Amino acid sequence: MMEWDAWGVAENRQTLSPQVKALLASALGIPEREPVSRDESDVTLSPSSLADEQLAALGDLLGAEHVSTEHGVRLRHSGGKSTPDLLRRRSTGVQDAPDAIVYPASHDEVSALLTLCAERSIAVVPFGGGTSVVGGLDPERGEFTAVIAVDLRRMSGLVSLDEVSGTAVLLPGTTGPEAEELLGAKGFSLGHFPQSFRFASIGGFAATRSSGQASSGYGRFDAMVDAIRIATPRGDLNLGRAPASAAGPDLRQLFLGSEGALGIITEVTVRVHRLPEETWYQGWSFPSFDAGAQALRTLVQSDAAPTVLRLSDEAESGLNLALAKDIGGKNPAAGVLAITTVEGTHGHVTAKSAEVAAVLAAAGGTALGDEPAKAWDHGRFDAPYLRDALIDAGAVVETLETATSWQNLANLRAAVTTALAEALGAQGTPPLVLCHISHTYRTGASLYFTVVCAAAEDAFTQWGRAKKAAGDAIVAAGGTITHHHAVGRDHQPWLADEVGELGIEILHAVKKTVDPRGILNPGKLIPAQG
Amino acid sequence: MMEWDAWGVAENRQTLSPQVKALLASALGIPEREPVSRDESDVTLSPSSLADEQLAALGDLLGAEHVSTEHGVRLRHSGGKSTPDLLRRRSTGVQDAPDAIVYPASHDEVSALLTLCAERSIAVVPFGGGTSVVGGLDPERGEFTAVIAVDLRRMSGLVSLDEVSGTAVLLPGTTGPEAEELLGAKGFSLGHFPQSFRFASIGGFAATRSSGQASSGYGRFDAMVDAIRIATPRGDLNLGRAPASAAGPDLRQLFLGSEGALGIITEVTVRVHRLPEETWYQGWSFPSFDAGAQALRTLVQSDAAPTVLRLSDEAESGLNLALAKDIGGKNPAAGVLAITTVEGTHGHVTAKSAEVAAVLAAAGGTALGDEPAKAWDHGRFDAPYLRDALIDAGAVVETLETATSWQNLANLRAAVTTALAEALGAQGTPPLVLCHISHTYRTGASLYFTVVCAAAEDAFTQWGRAKKAAGDAIVAAGGTITHHHAVGRDHQPWLADEVGELGIEILHAVKKTVDPRGILNPGKLIPAQG
Repeated sequence: MMEWDAWGVAENRQTLSPQVKALLASALGIPEREPVSRDESDVTLSPSSLADEQLAALGDLLGAEHVSTEHGVRLRHSGGKSTPDLLRRRSTGVQDAPDAIVYPASHDEVSALLTLCAERSIAVVPFGGGTSVVGGLDPERGEFTAVIAVDLRRMSGLVSLDEVSGTAVLLPGTTGPEAEELLGAKGFSLGHFPQSFRFASIGGFAATRSSGQASSGYGRFDAMVDAIRIATPRGDLNLGRAPASAAGPDLRQLFLGSEGALGIITEVTVRVHRLPEETWYQGWSFPSFDAGAQALRTLVQSDAAPTVLRLSDEAESGLNLALAKDIGGKNPAAGVLAITTVEGTHGHVTAKSAEVAAVLAAAGGTALGDEPAKAWDHGRFDAPYLRDALIDAGAVVETLETATSWQNLANLRAAVTTALAEALGAQGTPPLVLCHISHTYRTGASLYFTVVCAAAEDAFTQWGRAKKAAGDAIVAAGGTITHHHAVGRDHQPWLADEVGELGIEILHAVKKTVDPRGILNPGKLIPAQG
Repeated sequence: MMEWDAWGVAENRQTLSPQVKALLASALGIPEREPVSRDESDVTLSPSSLADEQLAALGDLLGAEHVSTEHGVRLRHSGGKSTPDLLRRRSTGVQDAPDAIVYPASHDEVSALLTLCAERSIAVVPFGGGTSVVGGLDPERGEFTAVIAVDLRRMSGLVSLDEVSGTAVLLPGTTGPEAEELLGAKGFSLGHFPQSFRFASIGGFAATRSSGQASSGYGRFDAMVDAIRIATPRGDLNLGRAPASAAGPDLRQLFLGSEGALGIITEVTVRVHRLPEETWYQGWSFPSFDAGAQALRTLVQSDAAPTVLRLSDEAESGLNLALAKDIGGKNPAAGVLAITTVEGTHGHVTAKSAEVAAVLAAAGGTALGDEPAKAWDHGRFDAPYLRDALIDAGAVVETLETATSWQNLANLRAAVTTALAEALGAQGTPPLVLCHISHTYRTGASLYFTVVCAAAEDAFTQWGRAKKAAGDAIVAAGGTITHHHAVGRDHQPWLADEVGELGIEILHAVKKTVDPRGILNPGKLIPAQG
């Protein structure tokens, strides 16, 4: 379980290097300050509003020891890990939290729990690893008097592995490292490594259409799913019978990305692959982000996509942000830095790495050897710890992401950068806006922005304005409002723009079919109808 | 427009070679017979039940010249091209047909047409290339007194091409060859080559989740779609804003595979690729189907999938069925025949073909040179013509397909083969059942069956029993009821098994949202609620 007021676990908390501290002062005008110490007992939560009778019914169903209303447990389930989440949690004043946290142990217990909650008017927030950065875990009550978090950690593990087909059935509470360990013991890997990997869960990956750092090679999580099992207040769904089908609309794709609003995912059948025999690492330098983006495009469009493919822009390369242990240090690239890896069998790595190297060199890339790629690999899950240390030091740091076609990529990047610079500049806190490409497709790519500025007195409102400006800019410039962070509460204002009013009506119709009372994750994903 | 009583166009009709005629006599006991000559004027269609007022309204909207009730036009829109369709069309007695055929020219005309039909209680069957083999085009009236076919041929063409992103916007009536010609003129290709390629349309590919012969390299059609535009009686949907998104459920996936029951697709944005610089062809021999399937699996699971990857079983290899011009001739493989091609840039073909060859050779394959692969390539769209000639000669010939995991592949193949052999054997017409793999995935593959037997007096009922047995066997053995032919009317009995009763309820809820009157393709895809 992660810390209540920060990403991850305490022993991995970062302190800022002298060069980062110097950067904060020189680039953003943030004076050095003493860290504030916080204790969870200082936080005041709104009292649990569950009636004794409701609490007793939950205990009767799951066992009293699997229902908690403890302060520390409620605090740790009171939301996700976005910067606004952390700012809120660190603030004084009464905070919302789920009225109880329950821990079902099986699909049948989840089903029974949903029936109970529908009957007794209790809203339900499904809770996996707790890593949402879009407000997807906020304890919203909707029209109900009580809300509980359903923590799926007891539903963890590998149900079965089909070594011939390369499929594994995993329980939803299985975390990234647990899945890799269970599969690795049998010679397999899932190959899904989002930045949230160390804490996020299989059910969460499915519910949010997660995308991992090796997506160029292994695909997005939604593409890895052959089948899912879902419990809803109206009964079960078992979707996906073959690697591909033409049996009508693909209903799996309604529940992938359903963010707890259409059911609780209780089992996921994913494609897995043999542990790679070897991995080829190569860093690259390109004269500019645009030149690098064109090289990545050429690579992917010539069917030569490697396993990992990333490109930092000038600002990110200049700060050396991709290389976690040496941020603010010397950028190994003369211009912008790109990272490639290829993994698999010896034969595949040999063939593919040669192809990758030939295409990137022909496209103007300079090979930097394996060091930058290995350095990136080493620190690739650590950025959220750095964020927390920067927030402690008086900065606002947040990330946001989108995707678009290759044709529109530069336009979208400029639009978002400008919107963030203007929105924060107007508040007297001009930001650094850094950007990278981390997910590529034949027809386009994602853009991932990191924003750093001095914190205003009301940093929550300060960032809210920047986020609004960025979201508006994304939509106006034709990007998707989220490539892999999901909708939650934070991206809801833009969903109707993305799928249309009729699309929203369809989502409501589906929700009403599976959740007629509306107990599932109220206020998330699907905007209220106008 | 295809012939009314057969696949394709008259000039490509096949006559049977002496060796095929000999096979029919020796293996299936079918005596040689004189071909029957048929004329479309001999067919009696049920009279058009459109009221004059309805007809006039259609003419007012689209222009009277774009509304037809002519006998020959109605006959050619009276269904698809399955063997039962052809048997029915060749039979005596009154046949159903759409009451009129209309030809809208634009998205706005389609929208207005749907509004008009909803107001005037006219059922609508969207009609692309007319190649359905699952009853998807049957002129079902549902609860309405009239039904029209909406032929989309006037909505044909390339709206735009984004050469940087590699995306093309195509109109729904564009046929496979038209799309390749329009794109080819600009140096691009779609790379979608189903057996129906010469006649089928872009809208139909999308509406049925089509899969082409190069799917190992370019993916299924549903994976090629970045965006779609749909007209419904409740308004428009424009879905898909980026190559990938986490903005909730992927609603595109409700309309891909919607088979005309949820709207009319009026524009499809597809990913395209540069015309290949070169193509590598290679035939392979494996000792057995099971050995070949294992080799294909190894290839795909080691990330070395070529562009085309196919494997015929012993029966199909023995009849040389994959090589259209020499059926019944000498099988070039000592055992079973596999076909591979790799296309793309010179660099890609060089790297990938070496990788493919190394993996297949290590897995027990014997390279046969390029001839078998080129021969397959040459005749790859011709099998339906052969079917028609065989039907004329007194055989029943039909195909069906499914998909499952690699682990379950042999089991499923045996179950379907046995079911077909028993169902037709019990009717005194033991069949030849041939099978191949034509679409592969990391976790499984498709199975495509060809069935040939002597026609009974009531061939329609004879095949119906075999189809029922095969469908039941597929479902019992865990396969999907269709990998790429869609549901239509013929696979409807098994859809609830595939997606569950709650899945069917979801489909009804979506349909009610976009088509509250239920005018869109009644009786197809979504089974009536129990």
